[in-house]
Amino acid sequence: MKRALFEEDHEQFRELAIEFNSRQIAGKYAQWEKEHQIPREVWQSAGENGLLGLAVPEEFGGMGIDDYRFRVVLDEEFVRSGHLAVALALHLHDDLVLPYLLAYGSQDLKQRWLPRFVDGSTITSCAFTEPGAGSDLRGVRTKAVRDGEDWLLSGQKTFIGNGAHGDAAVVLARTDGQTSRAGEDSFTLFMVERSEGYSNGQPFDKMGLRASDTAELFFDEVRVSDADRIGDVGRGLAYIKEQLPQARLAIAVAASAICTAAFDQALAHAGERSAFGQALTDFQNTRFELADLKTEAHVTQSFVDRAVLAYNAGELTAAEAAEVKLWASESAKKLTDRALQIHGGYGYIMEYPIAQSFTASRLLTIFGGTSEIMRETIGRAL
Amino acid sequence: MKRALFEEDHEQFRELAIEFNSRQIAGKYAQWEKEHQIPREVWQSAGENGLLGLAVPEEFGGMGIDDYRFRVVLDEEFVRSGHLAVALALHLHDDLVLPYLLAYGSQDLKQRWLPRFVDGSTITSCAFTEPGAGSDLRGVRTKAVRDGEDWLLSGQKTFIGNGAHGDAAVVLARTDGQTSRAGEDSFTLFMVERSEGYSNGQPFDKMGLRASDTAELFFDEVRVSDADRIGDVGRGLAYIKEQLPQARLAIAVAASAICTAAFDQALAHAGERSAFGQALTDFQNTRFELADLKTEAHVTQSFVDRAVLAYNAGELTAAEAAEVKLWASESAKKLTDRALQIHGGYGYIMEYPIAQSFTASRLLTIFGGTSEIMRETIGRAL
Amino acid sequence: MKRALFEEDHEQFRELAIEFNSRQIAGKYAQWEKEHQIPREVWQSAGENGLLGLAVPEEFGGMGIDDYRFRVVLDEEFVRSGHLAVALALHLHDDLVLPYLLAYGSQDLKQRWLPRFVDGSTITSCAFTEPGAGSDLRGVRTKAVRDGEDWLLSGQKTFIGNGAHGDAAVVLARTDGQTSRAGEDSFTLFMVERSEGYSNGQPFDKMGLRASDTAELFFDEVRVSDADRIGDVGRGLAYIKEQLPQARLAIAVAASAICTAAFDQALAHAGERSAFGQALTDFQNTRFELADLKTEAHVTQSFVDRAVLAYNAGELTAAEAAEVKLWASESAKKLTDRALQIHGGYGYIMEYPIAQSFTASRLLTIFGGTSEIMRETIGRAL
Amino acid sequence: MKRALFEEDHEQFRELAIEFNSRQIAGKYAQWEKEHQIPREVWQSAGENGLLGLAVPEEFGGMGIDDYRFRVVLDEEFVRSGHLAVALALHLHDDLVLPYLLAYGSQDLKQRWLPRFVDGSTITSCAFTEPGAGSDLRGVRTKAVRDGEDWLLSGQKTFIGNGAHGDAAVVLARTDGQTSRAGEDSFTLFMVERSEGYSNGQPFDKMGLRASDTAELFFDEVRVSDADRIGDVGRGLAYIKEQLPQARLAIAVAASAICTAAFDQALAHAGERSAFGQALTDFQNTRFELADLKTEAHVTQSFVDRAVLAYNAGELTAAEAAEVKLWASESAKKLTDRALQIHGGYGYIMEYPIAQSFTASRLLTIFGGTSEIMRETIGRAL
Repeated sequence: MKRALFEEDHEQFRELAIEFNSRQIAGKYAQWEKEHQIPREVWQSAGENGLLGLAVPEEFGGMGIDDYRFRVVLDEEFVRSGHLAVALALHLHDDLVLPYLLAYGSQDLKQRWLPRFVDGSTITSCAFTEPGAGSDLRGVRTKAVRDGEDWLLSGQKTFIGNGAHGDAAVVLARTDGQTSRAGEDSFTLFMVERSEGYSNGQPFDKMGLRASDTAELFFDEVRVSDADRIGDVGRGLAYIKEQLPQARLAIAVAASAICTAAFDQALAHAGERSAFGQALTDFQNTRFELADLKTEAHVTQSFVDRAVLAYNAGELTAAEAAEVKLWASESAKKLTDRALQIHGGYGYIMEYPIAQSFTASRLLTIFGGTSEIMRETIGRAL
Repeated sequence: MKRALFEEDHEQFRELAIEFNSRQIAGKYAQWEKEHQIPREVWQSAGENGLLGLAVPEEFGGMGIDDYRFRVVLDEEFVRSGHLAVALALHLHDDLVLPYLLAYGSQDLKQRWLPRFVDGSTITSCAFTEPGAGSDLRGVRTKAVRDGEDWLLSGQKTFIGNGAHGDAAVVLARTDGQTSRAGEDSFTLFMVERSEGYSNGQPFDKMGLRASDTAELFFDEVRVSDADRIGDVGRGLAYIKEQLPQARLAIAVAASAICTAAFDQALAHAGERSAFGQALTDFQNTRFELADLKTEAHVTQSFVDRAVLAYNAGELTAAEAAEVKLWASESAKKLTDRALQIHGGYGYIMEYPIAQSFTASRLLTIFGGTSEIMRETIGRAL
Repeated sequence: MKRALFEEDHEQFRELAIEFNSRQIAGKYAQWEKEHQIPREVWQSAGENGLLGLAVPEEFGGMGIDDYRFRVVLDEEFVRSGHLAVALALHLHDDLVLPYLLAYGSQDLKQRWLPRFVDGSTITSCAFTEPGAGSDLRGVRTKAVRDGEDWLLSGQKTFIGNGAHGDAAVVLARTDGQTSRAGEDSFTLFMVERSEGYSNGQPFDKMGLRASDTAELFFDEVRVSDADRIGDVGRGLAYIKEQLPQARLAIAVAASAICTAAFDQALAHAGERSAFGQALTDFQNTRFELADLKTEAHVTQSFVDRAVLAYNAGELTAAEAAEVKLWASESAKKLTDRALQIHGGYGYIMEYPIAQSFTASRLLTIFGGTSEIMRETIGRAL
Repeated sequence: MKRALFEEDHEQFRELAIEFNSRQIAGKYAQWEKEHQIPREVWQSAGENGLLGLAVPEEFGGMGIDDYRFRVVLDEEFVRSGHLAVALALHLHDDLVLPYLLAYGSQDLKQRWLPRFVDGSTITSCAFTEPGAGSDLRGVRTKAVRDGEDWLLSGQKTFIGNGAHGDAAVVLARTDGQTSRAGEDSFTLFMVERSEGYSNGQPFDKMGLRASDTAELFFDEVRVSDADRIGDVGRGLAYIKEQLPQARLAIAVAASAICTAAFDQALAHAGERSAFGQALTDFQNTRFELADLKTEAHVTQSFVDRAVLAYNAGELTAAEAAEVKLWASESAKKLTDRALQIHGGYGYIMEYPIAQSFTASRLLTIFGGTSEIMRETIGRAL
């Protein structure tokens, strides 16, 4: 079954992505994993190669691509190359930060931020989650208080990707001045640059995706200009809801690519190895496992591709995106586990791609809304 | 996510199918289940309504529709109405018998058989399986021996749908005169009409799909004209392989429709019932189960729809069809089980549609090639 | 690993059970399945053989056995013989009705009822469940109203095993005269004999366990003597809670026996059959499936045996019994499904024991409290 | 259900184990994880506390305990404390090396090795696995060639726990001088001390259990005295088979302890956290997950405990041990995954015990014979 998603220009873009992975990342990635850090030069190189901020309009230095399939191509190539933490870092930048700037930022804000965003000179984070509020954003306690023309931002965020090395963050803060259980209009989004009072904790020792730093952020009366407010006061949660389809779809796209890669890796490993005097693929159980892996990878791809087209057509709802995210992330978790088993002891060593994709996948049913949140979302929309 | 499979004329055909189910089957089906039989009048009525032999060319009385989506529509409506045994009976007739006549039958054979096939006056079976040979057709022992211009057919078949009430069967018989393990060219297909020496056993007491009779067939020197030979001598297995994509796709289509129906039935039941003073859908577990059902029904539909388009384009391979059949049948088994659980005790009573679709689904991972055969097929094609 | 549960006298009793199955049931059971009925003679014969009411004290005609392992032996032998509906019928009588009489019945009530119970002359049902109240007994609407020395019982029960052919039932009825949401002390238990106003619906067409009749019961001002009240007024729910451990354990025992039988049946089938020129057990997948079946059957047995000993010691709590019931019933459902698949098409025909145990198992995660109720029970006890 | 496994003296020993974990490991373990090493002092301290070589007879400095329940206690306390890599390191020493010395070593060999083994002055490895031979030990190529009174050992081993820091290893080497596919009697076991020609690779960067070093071992004509031969020439594989029950049981014991710990950790986390304004345990899905975790932890414990008693009685076969290892390791993998999900993002950070036990568990279905080997073992014994 030929895949019907891509056209000629996507495949050309794919060549670019392949070359970027091969020249700028391969051979260095293992070191970044040890250092828990992706070097700044990679961001700049990605910017030079036109891989950042695809959707940024030309007037702000971008290419104005609103066809999400280009992002799909990028993700697929990062995953295929095994550079999963780079995929995550760029996902945070492009799928979780950029949409807010594009959709709700003032012309002034766009002019100041987007060129830096596109050229890779500014690395960004999405700072919503807090120690006491995971998927439950109404529990956010970070607050922004008016101080003349500015705001003073105080609070603590956690699980913030690009948090230790990022230059700026989209921050969700409470702006209603209350402390009781918040309402829908209690929050506002700000673009906050690293400055006095903005600090971060040590990167977490994560199970996988180690090259992508994840850390706590601390804001101690950080001064934020009102010009860096994103959209209207009190509309933070509403904006986040509006952007849920892309955020969820993006994870599903990566998860589906991981499913495909897991099958490819298992097939390659089984094809090379033998046991008890016969090739691994001569064992019926191995063939059956590979058959299941291939089938579910195809199944997941079909579903995600359908969702990509729906998203491009502006028709993907948040509940539908939840279905796609739920399915693809659970599949990635399951398929990498089965593919790892085919690797035997090698699957347990982090230098093997399957160990990387297995540990990466374990985040996918949690990150961007847990599977439980997805089920709740779908269930409530019935 | 809008479903992209159907166009206007498919939806018009759907109206016809809905009306047929409503007028000709609803209200009578429960009785047929008890009698283990679908009355002959239903076949004739289906023929009159243009629901049989869609692919038969106009010169033989049909409509010459080679767009498989019309069969999909039919299957979906039989399933949605809960008339699963009718779906199966027609599937045997249209997907498992007809393709051999169309693809390999002589002009003479087509002229004699196809009009009877289209108008529902002749009910047909597909008689491949034998007691000692399930999915392993090389183990078939029924033999056809030349006797002048005719063949004498002797042997026993089992698990033959429409077997007790059918008028004719496509029979796979060994024609190489040998008794050792058969080769690829040991078999030939024949169109065999009920006549002297052609008898059947009592319909099996099946777990589900009771209205569809399934029985053993016995052939005791049945005389078959050489004009009723389908295609070349020795090409039986090759023909069967060529038709595997449609046979497997057809089951996947029904299985996917069952997945959708299982979700619909579970949602409807949960919406009506309450327990412990609250609606069933107020229980988080119920919502989560419904969310999973809906998601996997969508997932399965996306995969099957993609396969339908590939089949229409002549591109669906036997191994790909195996993926689709494997996935959809396993999903149907799983989803009907979970949907049944939501029904509580009601799910255990056969008058409830979910009990019917659960028991019907249990056949789908066996019928038309077990899931193990599918995995073997996929695994060998790697 | 030798099983440590049984001692010498249990094995002697097992001989008795084996002989009863072989002489009184085998050869006739298939007919009972068609008739949806177990003949009354079987009950009497069971009584004569000392298989009913094991726990009934000698003064009331029983043997006063309070070692639950004898019930385990009985269940195992009914299951091993494939006489699942008989196991169910006797389970209802002995595990769900008898305990209430023994624990809460007055001396007078015991004298009148227990001898009839032990000799099989009276077939009993447990009538708790209602159309609007499955596992949620507080939703029961059947009411008993004082009328002089008697009570007048009115209402409707559903899913009542032995309902169509039973002579009497333990009935849970509301006795607080209220209609609002009931409290803990709103209900009372009665022993109700078939008499004027006591009628039943047609036996349900169940998916499996067909020989065991299950039906609705209707009570239209049935007169019940206060002497047939079981225990105190208002204590019905409390009594039911007290008896939950045995009710749940009993189902787990049967479920575990079904797991063992499923493995045995799959092994026997695989050992007899061949495909593609080799024995089924020569296929790695078949061996792996059998290995899983054997392992989980052992696992389940270990857990249930431990619970039986705990029950005998008077230490099995309702939450622990819920764990055992949840686990064993889910295992039975899963293992019979996998064992059926090994049977291929034969597994779909009701005359094969695996088809019977598969369909029987589908009831076990619902009957006696659904798996969801079990999880809720366990979860709340944390 | 009270657990029936332990008696008074086991519980006294447990106090010792608890104190050892608390005084000697807690507070330092995180650092060892970073250094991929357990310090030598810990071994010595364990020796001083009588925790090493429990089964070593008193004449060789041990306590001569052949009741395996004391090892169970030790394992349980290491796991409960979250010191999983210590459990593994000691498991290798006591369960995989010691039994060969005890069962097959000469008196001289025992006198030289066992005291050093018991006092922790010598850290040992079990060196069977090779790059081209995982579970398939007949593929081992490391060879030992006679050289006067000694042997010269050459070859390469991989996945060797305690490999980088160990002082000695039990090595399986081919001694038949052939290079064709080996036979049952082609191999011999040796106790090999670190000396000239004995080197190791860098510890692997493992997914979990990081404090336990795992490395390749290289033998370049290492001189081994014939006095360090373990048992007879050519009996290596036979000895390994004889010791399979303990090796497998030991992993099952740890796995079962991990299941219990996973439930405990999930319950503790859920009890502390809240979301959407309610405690996590107020969500039905969380309660259901916890109920399943608790139930399966109990189930697994029941099965493993039964196996421990069978092992103590000398009755646990290799196939039965395979059932126990298969079940417990798969359960640990599954339950830690579900328990991790309850932790949300915290579960992905290695400082949380659940992240440690999840990654540790992923090894258990591979280490000591994969689940596939277990299924093959069970399947062949049918």
